[in-house]
Amino acid sequence: MAAERMVVVGGDAAGMSAASQARRLKGPDELEIIAFERGHFASYSACGIPYWVAGDVRSRDELVARTPHEHAERGIDLRMRTEVRELDVSGRRVLAHDLETGEESWTGYDKLVLATGASPLRPRLPGIDAPGVHGVQTLGDGQELLDTLARAKGRHAVVVGAGYIGVEMAEALVRHGYEVTVLHRDEQPMSTLDPDMGRLVHDAMTGMGITVVGGAAVTEIRTGPGGRVRAVATAHGEYPADVVVLGMGVRPRTELAEAAGLPLGRSGGLLTDLSLRVRGHEDIWAGGDCVEVWDLVSGSMRHIALGTHANKHGQIIGANVGGDYATFPGVVGTAVSKVCDLEIARTGLRERDALAVGLQFVAVTAESTSRAGYYPDAQPMTVKMIAERRTGRLLGVQIVGREGAGKRVDVAAVALTAKLTVEQMTALDLGYAPPFSPVWDPVLVAARKAAKKLREAR
Amino acid sequence: MAAERMVVVGGDAAGMSAASQARRLKGPDELEIIAFERGHFASYSACGIPYWVAGDVRSRDELVARTPHEHAERGIDLRMRTEVRELDVSGRRVLAHDLETGEESWTGYDKLVLATGASPLRPRLPGIDAPGVHGVQTLGDGQELLDTLARAKGRHAVVVGAGYIGVEMAEALVRHGYEVTVLHRDEQPMSTLDPDMGRLVHDAMTGMGITVVGGAAVTEIRTGPGGRVRAVATAHGEYPADVVVLGMGVRPRTELAEAAGLPLGRSGGLLTDLSLRVRGHEDIWAGGDCVEVWDLVSGSMRHIALGTHANKHGQIIGANVGGDYATFPGVVGTAVSKVCDLEIARTGLRERDALAVGLQFVAVTAESTSRAGYYPDAQPMTVKMIAERRTGRLLGVQIVGREGAGKRVDVAAVALTAKLTVEQMTALDLGYAPPFSPVWDPVLVAARKAAKKLREAR
Repeated sequence: MAAERMVVVGGDAAGMSAASQARRLKGPDELEIIAFERGHFASYSACGIPYWVAGDVRSRDELVARTPHEHAERGIDLRMRTEVRELDVSGRRVLAHDLETGEESWTGYDKLVLATGASPLRPRLPGIDAPGVHGVQTLGDGQELLDTLARAKGRHAVVVGAGYIGVEMAEALVRHGYEVTVLHRDEQPMSTLDPDMGRLVHDAMTGMGITVVGGAAVTEIRTGPGGRVRAVATAHGEYPADVVVLGMGVRPRTELAEAAGLPLGRSGGLLTDLSLRVRGHEDIWAGGDCVEVWDLVSGSMRHIALGTHANKHGQIIGANVGGDYATFPGVVGTAVSKVCDLEIARTGLRERDALAVGLQFVAVTAESTSRAGYYPDAQPMTVKMIAERRTGRLLGVQIVGREGAGKRVDVAAVALTAKLTVEQMTALDLGYAPPFSPVWDPVLVAARKAAKKLREAR
Repeated sequence: MAAERMVVVGGDAAGMSAASQARRLKGPDELEIIAFERGHFASYSACGIPYWVAGDVRSRDELVARTPHEHAERGIDLRMRTEVRELDVSGRRVLAHDLETGEESWTGYDKLVLATGASPLRPRLPGIDAPGVHGVQTLGDGQELLDTLARAKGRHAVVVGAGYIGVEMAEALVRHGYEVTVLHRDEQPMSTLDPDMGRLVHDAMTGMGITVVGGAAVTEIRTGPGGRVRAVATAHGEYPADVVVLGMGVRPRTELAEAAGLPLGRSGGLLTDLSLRVRGHEDIWAGGDCVEVWDLVSGSMRHIALGTHANKHGQIIGANVGGDYATFPGVVGTAVSKVCDLEIARTGLRERDALAVGLQFVAVTAESTSRAGYYPDAQPMTVKMIAERRTGRLLGVQIVGREGAGKRVDVAAVALTAKLTVEQMTALDLGYAPPFSPVWDPVLVAARKAAKKLREAR
């Protein structure tokens, strides 16, 4: 039997994990694997870019999990700087464009994996392409920003957007000695949290010397001599800037799939079944930042761009393409981040998410510490917990604190997956010793408070 | 109506939590509360003693959550240095002995709470009562040890026992500049882990300059001039000792209950129902280190002396005595500890526990890191995972690593509570960002390995 051919579009986490997993299951005699990547780098940790820029990670190469050469050694033909520009579903082939030579050619597939990732939102504002304005989506972006920082010797940095990338880049720029202003459009930074918890992030960042301006929609990037960025303007003011970093979020990169008639969801991500097969297409899979995922808490499809999901997707797609069987049951919406020593975490639904899907709830906020109060370096932590009013089921948790706060969200992530009630959570047998936790873990403190409020609300 | 009287025997975590919670629900007009404590201190964190001895906690007072005076202000009559020596169940009264005056008197109760704690195991060896030999069960013990350390200016310390207290005390003595030898009877230290994981603890402690000797049953404490400790002897050798700390485990302190005919389990702990009412006794509750608890994983009763359970028990008993309703569903056996920068955690069943209750299983061990490999201070960590062979249900997790390792056990604790399979765990949506975790959290790495081994074992 002639070898089947697996074609992968997009050579980062989801795509190359899929290729690698399929290769583990089937050798080159059984399965030919060709992967197309339009960029200069593949198989890298985009999540690591802020830490590379900050100086925590010394070299770009450390972010690369596997080079094209290493893939080749494992029988994966990864073609760099090659963009897939057309997908012919009925002809089972893709049109690849070599960005170096300009050559184009069709490649047939038996199994296709779409792992085209996400595009950064970059509004068409005056000056947005000026020198000194940077995204941080790719390793190339990171290198360009580092080059600017090395050259600019500036004093003022503006970060546009106050989500994960925004706050992480604010820290990176502080570490480079800049006076940093973060402009964002919402009431509070970190809009993946409820505003009351976002307020804590605002206050902590302000305490670090970062200027955080909410309700600030950027209207223009103003340039100075040589066309370089000079300032960022909003309706309410102008903020001097020697360098600007854009962290305004992303959307699924699905133009190729859309043109081919593949099904997209409300946020523009590809729709798949639980095996990550594109709905209605037997031989096409999709995963990573270009798909929508099932949210187990709200019972709806969402777009979440996150490396850990992309890696899981890749494994699952690779297993299925390789003739094994695996499914992706969905997410609960866990995310964790930090800005300097502030740790920020969330999982499940915010108040507005619960309202949007018709769930009534109680919400509580509990103050606690990371360790026993008498133990050195016990750090304050705030845990917000949301529970469904009638059933008491946990709906979401948000945590803002210092060292030791963030990963506590994992307890809630598992509880959401298992659909535990907050009453059940009050009895959870969590690890306790004075260096690790107060005798009542902060998550338990919040659960007790939520359970009490629920009883009173009945 | 005349006030009911609640009598509490034992003034530490379980007893005083029960008293406080009952007081929150019922004022002094409705409920009189009398608590007897035979020691000099009440409401303190015994778990904090090793850190106080180590110097992490500056003063004894920091370990005291609430003084007798503070209890009195809240209408709780806490009688210190008063030992309850007899329980007359049919007469609903206890005989209290004032250890200062020698006076004895009977006190009647409507509701009785037994929170008599645990006794340290202290074998009747020659020399065991010599000056320089210390337990670390009470604040008084801790003070005596600190006095010895201040006076002795010795060089050699021997810790007998390599459980939580033993390894924590080893660290404390290292911090005081002693050359520390830990003698223990098992194959490896930390027998709450499987030996393969205990071996990692042995190696790490050895790397810290601590001498760890297994298979070492102490036969004698040898004394020198003035009757002070000079050495610890085993069948195989003699270990010089200027100070000896005993950490040989505890057993439930239930002599009072036993004499009164209350039901005890196989490990000597009181047996209660889920509301923590002593079985067969309508008006007697028991909690904390003197009871056995239901193990949700093995389906059997166990004795686990741990402050976090004692506090939960106290809350639940207080709620029930106060006329509210609460239950303690059981434990999964979570514990976490550290010795210097080594973190040690476990939950659920060890291999031998699974075998003892007739469960067949697969066990895997996975190496990972606390953060993304490229992130500074990513620390190695070993996760062992045990899953039932037929159903794939998680049975237990053990973790040995450095900073960031220990509290990861909480994910497994929740998964055990919810009876998740390791296959389900492979898809858990745990918090990911490079400073917090590799893209595959170490628990997920272990779950994937366990799930794979299970599939192969079928």
